[in-house]
Amino acid sequence: MIGTPEQYRDRMKALKPKAFVGGEEIQNLLTDPNTRPILNTVAKTYELACDPRFQDVMTVESPLTGERVSRLNHVAGSIQDLERRLELTRLMTQSTGTCCGRCGGCSGLNTLAATTYAMKRDGKGEYHGRFMDFVKWVHQNDLACSAATTSPKGDRSKSPKEQDPDLHLRVVAKRKDGIVLRGAKAHQTSAIGVDEMIVYPSVFGPGEEAYAVACAVPNSSEGLTYFLQFNSDDAERRAADDISVLGNPLYGGRPTMLVVYEDVFVPWERVFMCGEVEYTKVSANAARRTHVYNEGPCKAGFGDLILGASVFLAESNGLDKEPHIVEDLVKIVAANETTYASAVVAAQRGSEIPAGSGVFFADEAFSVLSKLNANDGFFEVVKAAADIAGGLLITMPSERELGNPESRALLLKYLQGRSDVPTEERMRMFKFLNNYVASPHAAQAWTGGGAPYHLRMALYNCTDLEEKKELAAAIAFAAGSP
Amino acid sequence: MIGTPEQYRDRMKALKPKAFVGGEEIQNLLTDPNTRPILNTVAKTYELACDPRFQDVMTVESPLTGERVSRLNHVAGSIQDLERRLELTRLMTQSTGTCCGRCGGCSGLNTLAATTYAMKRDGKGEYHGRFMDFVKWVHQNDLACSAATTSPKGDRSKSPKEQDPDLHLRVVAKRKDGIVLRGAKAHQTSAIGVDEMIVYPSVFGPGEEAYAVACAVPNSSEGLTYFLQFNSDDAERRAADDISVLGNPLYGGRPTMLVVYEDVFVPWERVFMCGEVEYTKVSANAARRTHVYNEGPCKAGFGDLILGASVFLAESNGLDKEPHIVEDLVKIVAANETTYASAVVAAQRGSEIPAGSGVFFADEAFSVLSKLNANDGFFEVVKAAADIAGGLLITMPSERELGNPESRALLLKYLQGRSDVPTEERMRMFKFLNNYVASPHAAQAWTGGGAPYHLRMALYNCTDLEEKKELAAAIAFAAGSP
Amino acid sequence: MIGTPEQYRDRMKALKPKAFVGGEEIQNLLTDPNTRPILNTVAKTYELACDPRFQDVMTVESPLTGERVSRLNHVAGSIQDLERRLELTRLMTQSTGTCCGRCGGCSGLNTLAATTYAMKRDGKGEYHGRFMDFVKWVHQNDLACSAATTSPKGDRSKSPKEQDPDLHLRVVAKRKDGIVLRGAKAHQTSAIGVDEMIVYPSVFGPGEEAYAVACAVPNSSEGLTYFLQFNSDDAERRAADDISVLGNPLYGGRPTMLVVYEDVFVPWERVFMCGEVEYTKVSANAARRTHVYNEGPCKAGFGDLILGASVFLAESNGLDKEPHIVEDLVKIVAANETTYASAVVAAQRGSEIPAGSGVFFADEAFSVLSKLNANDGFFEVVKAAADIAGGLLITMPSERELGNPESRALLLKYLQGRSDVPTEERMRMFKFLNNYVASPHAAQAWTGGGAPYHLRMALYNCTDLEEKKELAAAIAFAAGSP
Amino acid sequence: MIGTPEQYRDRMKALKPKAFVGGEEIQNLLTDPNTRPILNTVAKTYELACDPRFQDVMTVESPLTGERVSRLNHVAGSIQDLERRLELTRLMTQSTGTCCGRCGGCSGLNTLAATTYAMKRDGKGEYHGRFMDFVKWVHQNDLACSAATTSPKGDRSKSPKEQDPDLHLRVVAKRKDGIVLRGAKAHQTSAIGVDEMIVYPSVFGPGEEAYAVACAVPNSSEGLTYFLQFNSDDAERRAADDISVLGNPLYGGRPTMLVVYEDVFVPWERVFMCGEVEYTKVSANAARRTHVYNEGPCKAGFGDLILGASVFLAESNGLDKEPHIVEDLVKIVAANETTYASAVVAAQRGSEIPAGSGVFFADEAFSVLSKLNANDGFFEVVKAAADIAGGLLITMPSERELGNPESRALLLKYLQGRSDVPTEERMRMFKFLNNYVASPHAAQAWTGGGAPYHLRMALYNCTDLEEKKELAAAIAFAAGSP
Repeated sequence: MIGTPEQYRDRMKALKPKAFVGGEEIQNLLTDPNTRPILNTVAKTYELACDPRFQDVMTVESPLTGERVSRLNHVAGSIQDLERRLELTRLMTQSTGTCCGRCGGCSGLNTLAATTYAMKRDGKGEYHGRFMDFVKWVHQNDLACSAATTSPKGDRSKSPKEQDPDLHLRVVAKRKDGIVLRGAKAHQTSAIGVDEMIVYPSVFGPGEEAYAVACAVPNSSEGLTYFLQFNSDDAERRAADDISVLGNPLYGGRPTMLVVYEDVFVPWERVFMCGEVEYTKVSANAARRTHVYNEGPCKAGFGDLILGASVFLAESNGLDKEPHIVEDLVKIVAANETTYASAVVAAQRGSEIPAGSGVFFADEAFSVLSKLNANDGFFEVVKAAADIAGGLLITMPSERELGNPESRALLLKYLQGRSDVPTEERMRMFKFLNNYVASPHAAQAWTGGGAPYHLRMALYNCTDLEEKKELAAAIAFAAGSP
Repeated sequence: MIGTPEQYRDRMKALKPKAFVGGEEIQNLLTDPNTRPILNTVAKTYELACDPRFQDVMTVESPLTGERVSRLNHVAGSIQDLERRLELTRLMTQSTGTCCGRCGGCSGLNTLAATTYAMKRDGKGEYHGRFMDFVKWVHQNDLACSAATTSPKGDRSKSPKEQDPDLHLRVVAKRKDGIVLRGAKAHQTSAIGVDEMIVYPSVFGPGEEAYAVACAVPNSSEGLTYFLQFNSDDAERRAADDISVLGNPLYGGRPTMLVVYEDVFVPWERVFMCGEVEYTKVSANAARRTHVYNEGPCKAGFGDLILGASVFLAESNGLDKEPHIVEDLVKIVAANETTYASAVVAAQRGSEIPAGSGVFFADEAFSVLSKLNANDGFFEVVKAAADIAGGLLITMPSERELGNPESRALLLKYLQGRSDVPTEERMRMFKFLNNYVASPHAAQAWTGGGAPYHLRMALYNCTDLEEKKELAAAIAFAAGSP
Repeated sequence: MIGTPEQYRDRMKALKPKAFVGGEEIQNLLTDPNTRPILNTVAKTYELACDPRFQDVMTVESPLTGERVSRLNHVAGSIQDLERRLELTRLMTQSTGTCCGRCGGCSGLNTLAATTYAMKRDGKGEYHGRFMDFVKWVHQNDLACSAATTSPKGDRSKSPKEQDPDLHLRVVAKRKDGIVLRGAKAHQTSAIGVDEMIVYPSVFGPGEEAYAVACAVPNSSEGLTYFLQFNSDDAERRAADDISVLGNPLYGGRPTMLVVYEDVFVPWERVFMCGEVEYTKVSANAARRTHVYNEGPCKAGFGDLILGASVFLAESNGLDKEPHIVEDLVKIVAANETTYASAVVAAQRGSEIPAGSGVFFADEAFSVLSKLNANDGFFEVVKAAADIAGGLLITMPSERELGNPESRALLLKYLQGRSDVPTEERMRMFKFLNNYVASPHAAQAWTGGGAPYHLRMALYNCTDLEEKKELAAAIAFAAGSP
Repeated sequence: MIGTPEQYRDRMKALKPKAFVGGEEIQNLLTDPNTRPILNTVAKTYELACDPRFQDVMTVESPLTGERVSRLNHVAGSIQDLERRLELTRLMTQSTGTCCGRCGGCSGLNTLAATTYAMKRDGKGEYHGRFMDFVKWVHQNDLACSAATTSPKGDRSKSPKEQDPDLHLRVVAKRKDGIVLRGAKAHQTSAIGVDEMIVYPSVFGPGEEAYAVACAVPNSSEGLTYFLQFNSDDAERRAADDISVLGNPLYGGRPTMLVVYEDVFVPWERVFMCGEVEYTKVSANAARRTHVYNEGPCKAGFGDLILGASVFLAESNGLDKEPHIVEDLVKIVAANETTYASAVVAAQRGSEIPAGSGVFFADEAFSVLSKLNANDGFFEVVKAAADIAGGLLITMPSERELGNPESRALLLKYLQGRSDVPTEERMRMFKFLNNYVASPHAAQAWTGGGAPYHLRMALYNCTDLEEKKELAAAIAFAAGSP
């Protein structure tokens, strides 16, 4: 089924998480200033899924229930599914200007579908059946999911066992009815605004079995504590009495949190890996393939908004036809579409992995490339947008000043641009653009979704260097051995 | 039909062009040092077309003859055709390390198929019928074609009429049986090594009817004079008594020439536009779309060879596992596949233009993007390869020294690398890589295939800036007007 | 004389400006959350000037009073003065992590010293004498000055007269005792925290005499209204009950404001230009030369702090010896010192302009170059720092959570890094670095201090292209004319 | 004394080296096509030294003889000497368009002056006295010197002893009257065109004493064999009957060679290190400091020529006022002066090393930075120049065609540009620019003068990261510990 925003909000209303932001405990997910935009954004995924215009992009027929379900809960079964997911990602970013919150969950579902299949194929446990039952239940209830991937890790030069063992999420007890988890997951986007968190491990080896754990944990389970990120824009929002003057009023910035597990119980029917370290590499690779290729469309969606705001401001500055401004606009377009193109090819060259699983993943090389191009590209976009907008991008007074009639008169006079653009709209657009180019966005794009170094090494590892050597040798040595 | 390399060489043997290179007149296309690699490369297109392994890539069933013909003479009729052409381009570059010489001809055929269709649709002349007859004849004989696009233009700040009128190729007489052309076409790749030159105009306006001319001119027609480019590597080749010591022994560098038309007669059945200035924009746009998206695969193919040679040399230097060398290799891969990805998307998003014509063109934005990324990317590739190879890339003595036994002993001793790599092969590979990264290649990649400025403006013009503004406004103004 | 921080604060205490920030009126400059860091930073200039360790850098003997005065009020009289100013700039940025607030004032004093000298030389008015009297008075009282340069300008495609005439600051009345100003100045750094604002014009032509006005206006003069910028970090600070958790606790971000002039009276003894449009180009050029070369050291100073924080975090992550992290650190160093080097050369190649004036200005080409390199360099620094720090740079919870003992225990456990680095310090350093790389800093560096396009054109205009042509021709034509 | 070009040529005439180029033995240094430009360039150093206009730059009073001598043989004794050397380097590159050939020799003299001083200070042998006698003799006869630095090294993953021991130049015998050398030095610029080769080692450790050898070896000594590099432009020159059509007719490209030592005897009075491995690090550091800071001015000099040629061609294309062409010109200027600026600062911050030696070296960090900026900068210059010049840069026919009257008429007609620029000059300038941007120059700039990776690590090693950490901590922790 396709749920409605209202159904989603009702579920969230019932939750009582232990959660903190800016030093305060969150009392109500629906009204807390910092969780509200998370819920707005997740609700938007339901709203667009209900919108007939976007049915093909946002929904898909579930092979498990036979009904249409959100594509964000779909395990990709074809190249077309991979392609549609990119469209969904860009649409969501364009529609909210922030992270839709369920993208990671979708990646988690695809990761575990493949990983549990591989275990089943090899005769390891009942994980796959359990997992598919879980997915079916998610489909039947159109639940929102997020991913819980990265443990805090502490000192990176030390292995999990050489330091506080809880710095990597681990199983501290196996009981008859389930397992008990201790540790934490960091950088979790929107976890507090979804129904289920899909937990899966990074790569571990023999002796580290306790860390090889995958499962589903309901949001606000007992033993969980959430600490929300608190960048300046989060602080600004928390303090604001009127959200209309914020950069992205309804949807805010990209919200992440540290989720601490203090002996959280997970019943066996929600456990999808428990100790099989030899499959952690399978899940890590699957996670990279299913997730990273979304980074391009995601950043291209932000770039679309930055481009739109830049054009607006170039026009209102009276400079939109200046050659150097036009060149700046071209730079934004080029960066957006370059990263998008790699993602499209990644999807198009996707394949079923493991063979027989029915799960489709994007091509690894083009996935990684999309993300790497997104990283540098976003900074090029920021530079071009700053160049176009000029100083007011940073130096503009608060729109709150407009509430004072005397101040309003002065600001509407002195911040005016081209006469046919209302100055209030111009101020609004400066603040909106500021939200992307004078904010955590670019650095977040850089650090999120996988460390660039590891992505570069992934690209290296999936290149057939021997084949290239042979191509070169065939021509270099063409006229006989030297 | 699919011709053989032998048939092609026989046709070339019969030609007696008036042609000059390095101050000397060319006597025999098959044996002249500077035309021989051109013929080798074009012959390679026939060789691979005859190779069953490459049948799908290199050949296609002609809708005009019902037989398989070279894809290089095919008018694209589907998305798949656009995609296959990219594969062909990369395969050819990988297989020869230079320009295959027929790519421009293929672009010319597609350009004129669309342009003459548009004229037919609008009731302009018999051009389309004539042109399709010509294509059928090309298919029946599997002829090689090149494109003749760019007139010399002289002073770019002046229009054709403000300076020597011959600086743009023009019709100086219309006779009962045909037209007479005067002027020149510059930068023509491989023109002297093909059967037919496909002539088409750049953009002209009212009053410039004489310049709006498209037609097919047989290679070596009376009145034509060819002046071949003469870079240092062309000079090196001309002087060499043994091609095995050259950078790319069999296929050489990318060969271009200035072709001067001194009152060349073209019969009406080979004239496909004559004065219809309003269609020059149609043909220019078609040319950009059909041609530019090939630049990515072409440069990626060169990049594959550079990557292969770099890996070879990194290994023979004993440095292939060094982290900074690995990072360099990743840079090459990233540049190659980034430009390739845009081209693939350009093909995938192709469409029939004009509607009803049956002719498919790649998406303009992604085409242009592919070329722009190829431009900068090639220089990144060059930098990384130079970094990997080190000083001998430039400072290596000639392999000719190996002919002297005493010198040979010294060089094999002092130029050795890792013990399992024969020093002769190492020297060979340094020279091969030198041919790409210490040569005209990068600058040629930059200047060929369309001026970057015009490509950037094309990207600007095909971006819907209003749509982006609306996306930004929808979110910025989401909480009510400010 | 050299004033003390206390004397400065006493003067500020006496001011009652009409000023707004975040929709609220400022009541007390010393205690308002958003003006307090401005005063802290300006006070730091006095503190360091009183510190014997920095005497040579921070102070200089005044040729007007014979006493040592702040170098920030000094009219450069030698190459050494130009060099020392750079050291001062980098020292101030390193010491406060933000804009010292008086740099623009120093530039204004130098600009008007040269401009009024040129007018005196040409027999224009009594401006120079008045101005030097003003400088002497500034020296005698060690006052802090800021610069008021840029009018809002409205629609940039329109001249001042084609739109609301007040969009460029102008003289609306000349009275016996002085002039009356109306309009505004935008992007004014720290104006509310200094004693005097040095007003000077951009370039105007005949018919625009009312806009050609330079003068000194005391902070908080009647008729002035200040609207402070309000970025997210300004909002965060305004809402904070404890500044110790802010990114830069004492000194904050770089503070700018829009200053509106509603018929502000300026007595003739403080008017240094009034209608002499032919000297506006002189002052604009002088302003560029005296100011822009400071941008390099300023950004290098920020870069030093980013480098320091990055090293700290790399170590606490246990990754500081990883090759890719070392490469990132090198990128930061290279960007910092590249921009600094150009500034040093700009100073070193300075000269007296106009001849006989005794006023020294940095070389224009290297000044501009320093700023252009700072622009791109700062973004490279940001990328490298984000790469080094990793995800917590953005996703870290507020340090306010540490106030709750239970939360504190969890965070100190789960955010720990290398065991010898206290987790509180680690959190502190993440927030500190966040303040530079996930903030307005990079975009502000880009847009501040002169539009990049105009700087590029200045570099073009001060290059002797004819000389370069001759150099090329001498070698190209060396073997006789072709 | 200051020698004349004639005296220099006379000395060269007397030499009978065993040398090969392009597979042929060199018979006469003065007339061989590939050595002649080397001699022209070295002769130019004498010519300019005799020119009163350049006396301060090209010559200096020798502290050893009291007479003026070439600055290229001078051991820098002051900051001013360091600065003047940069001017000399840029002047030489601007004047010849290639490597002056004596720059490395100058670096070698400075390197050994410091190194032998350090040994003397520590009571090691008579090297310093011998070396200063040698320098005095060089001054008295105004000899030209080159440097012999880099051994071939073979497999870089192996130490000298793990492979053929001759792959690093070594002492194979110590005799009463001197030592015997076996091995080779690679990448030696202009060695065959100077009087003396200054040999010094890279870094070696205990057990590698045989490799720790510094000495002076007369050009063409018995046992030496020279193998000259053979790039395409070297081949073009070798084959040319008329040098006036070459890219840089008189001075050619940057000439290097492999010099093989087959048991070459060096008398003790020319031996300046023999086995003192602990000083090889001293000499390597000195070499980097004295040499690398010249790379910036050297490449800026090339950049000046490229800029001049680009302006010429932009004008003759009628495009020099187009905004995108102007931006390209600015890019060239910016790249040139950015690398130059770092070198100037490196000189300005030079110091005496070791203390008491009287030998001045440039600052290491800014030296390295200059080179790193030169590397990337040269490629930016190449891209901009290619963009400006357009396709003829690569596709132009040989100027040899002008010798045929009929061809001449056609080419002068069809290659014409703006009417006031003679087409012959235009063709000449295209070839001249081709010589820099479609040639080995950029890759040679990249690989020459020190591997970029080692330079980056040098920059890392000479940065005080602890100091930066303290700066950051002082501000981050300013409001009390968190």
